[in-house]
Amino acid sequence: MAVKTIQWKNDRVIMLDQRLLPHKEVYRVCRDYNEVAEAIRNMVIRGAPAIGVAAAMGVALGMLKAPEKTFDREFDRVVLTLGKTRPTAVNLFWALQRMRDVYSRNRSKGVESVKRALRDEAQKIFRDDIAANKQIGKYGASLMRNAKQIMTYCNAGALATAGYGTALGVLRALKESGSHFEVFVNETRPFLQGARLTAWELKKEKISATLITDNMAGYLMQKGKVDAVVVGCDRVAANGDVANKIGTYTIAVLAKRHGIPFYVAGPTSSIDINCPSGNDIPIEQRDAKEVSHLFGKPLAPKGMKVFNPAFDVTAQDLISAIITEKGVINPPYQPNIRNYVSY
Amino acid sequence: MAVKTIQWKNDRVIMLDQRLLPHKEVYRVCRDYNEVAEAIRNMVIRGAPAIGVAAAMGVALGMLKAPEKTFDREFDRVVLTLGKTRPTAVNLFWALQRMRDVYSRNRSKGVESVKRALRDEAQKIFRDDIAANKQIGKYGASLMRNAKQIMTYCNAGALATAGYGTALGVLRALKESGSHFEVFVNETRPFLQGARLTAWELKKEKISATLITDNMAGYLMQKGKVDAVVVGCDRVAANGDVANKIGTYTIAVLAKRHGIPFYVAGPTSSIDINCPSGNDIPIEQRDAKEVSHLFGKPLAPKGMKVFNPAFDVTAQDLISAIITEKGVINPPYQPNIRNYVSY
Repeated sequence: MAVKTIQWKNDRVIMLDQRLLPHKEVYRVCRDYNEVAEAIRNMVIRGAPAIGVAAAMGVALGMLKAPEKTFDREFDRVVLTLGKTRPTAVNLFWALQRMRDVYSRNRSKGVESVKRALRDEAQKIFRDDIAANKQIGKYGASLMRNAKQIMTYCNAGALATAGYGTALGVLRALKESGSHFEVFVNETRPFLQGARLTAWELKKEKISATLITDNMAGYLMQKGKVDAVVVGCDRVAANGDVANKIGTYTIAVLAKRHGIPFYVAGPTSSIDINCPSGNDIPIEQRDAKEVSHLFGKPLAPKGMKVFNPAFDVTAQDLISAIITEKGVINPPYQPNIRNYVSY
Repeated sequence: MAVKTIQWKNDRVIMLDQRLLPHKEVYRVCRDYNEVAEAIRNMVIRGAPAIGVAAAMGVALGMLKAPEKTFDREFDRVVLTLGKTRPTAVNLFWALQRMRDVYSRNRSKGVESVKRALRDEAQKIFRDDIAANKQIGKYGASLMRNAKQIMTYCNAGALATAGYGTALGVLRALKESGSHFEVFVNETRPFLQGARLTAWELKKEKISATLITDNMAGYLMQKGKVDAVVVGCDRVAANGDVANKIGTYTIAVLAKRHGIPFYVAGPTSSIDINCPSGNDIPIEQRDAKEVSHLFGKPLAPKGMKVFNPAFDVTAQDLISAIITEKGVINPPYQPNIRNYVSY
């Protein structure tokens, strides 16, 4: 893997600090679960599947030195702390649930067995995610084989996952299949995941890409410059509504107006079957400074009120298909999605 | 007027440098027409009506010291230079045409008469624009009197005109009428006219406003937070299609999906009856660095390809009404617009 988003190494969790990309490649070493929680909260690592992997590794790390006497209490504390970091991506809660299940299954074997099992499970979640991404890539590349001008949004790449990417995994697989295409990258304000992360990944991958500001997507579609859109997801509701990075909804509305297919790519760990619709997905509100400042400098007048929702919900009627590692889910989503649920 | 966008003073043209707002209020003094042309090109001054005023003042300034012997040749050169600064806003060409007409009408009276007439005309264009803005404000405030949550885009304020504003003129008039309302300001990438200029104007005016990134507009509409949208315009085609700042089209598509009225405000000098439709409006492409850099620092990886159209076209079917100083133009625009043409 060219991009090492997150690694488990010598009982440490090592993450590429995504806040400093594309200009600096700095790796952060987390020595305890609080550091992992902090890294998730501060977006050192981001992207729904990557957050899931980080949380699982955080649990394994947090329990390594837990004393036998307070082991159960410590486990609850670790899981609770990691579960409070970010509310929207369901992969976080999915990964924590997997860790809970492993804990329960192994608890009777003693704390050393539990520690080993948790560490193994975190690494399995890591490996499973890469395998899922590669399957998503295959299904997506087949679905989008004729698209020559592809738009993506935010970063659903190696940096958002254990290593290969969901939406960008599809682009990687397309390239591996010999297809030639151009990618339009929305910069994705306010955190600039498109300009900073997706642009960086596509450059490394030698995939031809053009950067635009988010408000230019409609213009490109008007001019016939977009054959298909593919994005990642933070949570898919039972009815097919999708929460993803703020602005995704706008791209989907524009795609609909122009008759352009709009694809969502993500592992089945992003499906939340207990969430009836997008209205039930909690949307994280982040710090005003992410909008009002850049490089620590103010963009707006001092004291300006700011609104900063980190995600929005794309209604299922705007989504052409959802690409998972188990196959492509087509509408109607309400019945079809149940065949693809992983928990 | 609190905001002095452009002034004619002691045979100099003085402009507030809008590139430095909201942090610094610096006035640039232009001593010849080339400096005016440069200021328009570099966006020291921007906004369709303000560009028109600046161009007219540039012509008057350029001819002040023109020698009698080469007077006609010099006039052509001045008009040509100013006409090449920016292609999309039709007010530039409308203002230059007014100056040409004055030139022709007065040429037989000798160069001193022409100089005086040009100077008078430039100042008349300035005064007429403020008067037109105030009328637009009146008509718009009546149309939008029940809107309590209003979205605007880019800057169509005092800074974009001779002094009162088109879209923001409507908001000023609404406030003067005693209405209470909240404004959502899109930051308007890449040049940030919303975050820098509109936020600054609304703050000065004590109108309650909240800043968002451009990709949050859809979320606010989904949540029922927007009763109406009002924006300015750079050119209105004969069929009612409107060119305005890049991203306007997206806001209009979103407004349509949510059944929210989308109003365009502008003087009739922005109507180009010789332009059959939006397809015929030239769209300026600007420097890649405006997208890839901010505060001189790169946002994206080095060498990243960038696309930077400065405007887009909003199709007439997305526009609820066009508010001019002569009244509100309702659909169908193709026949109705002819009654409001100013040249």
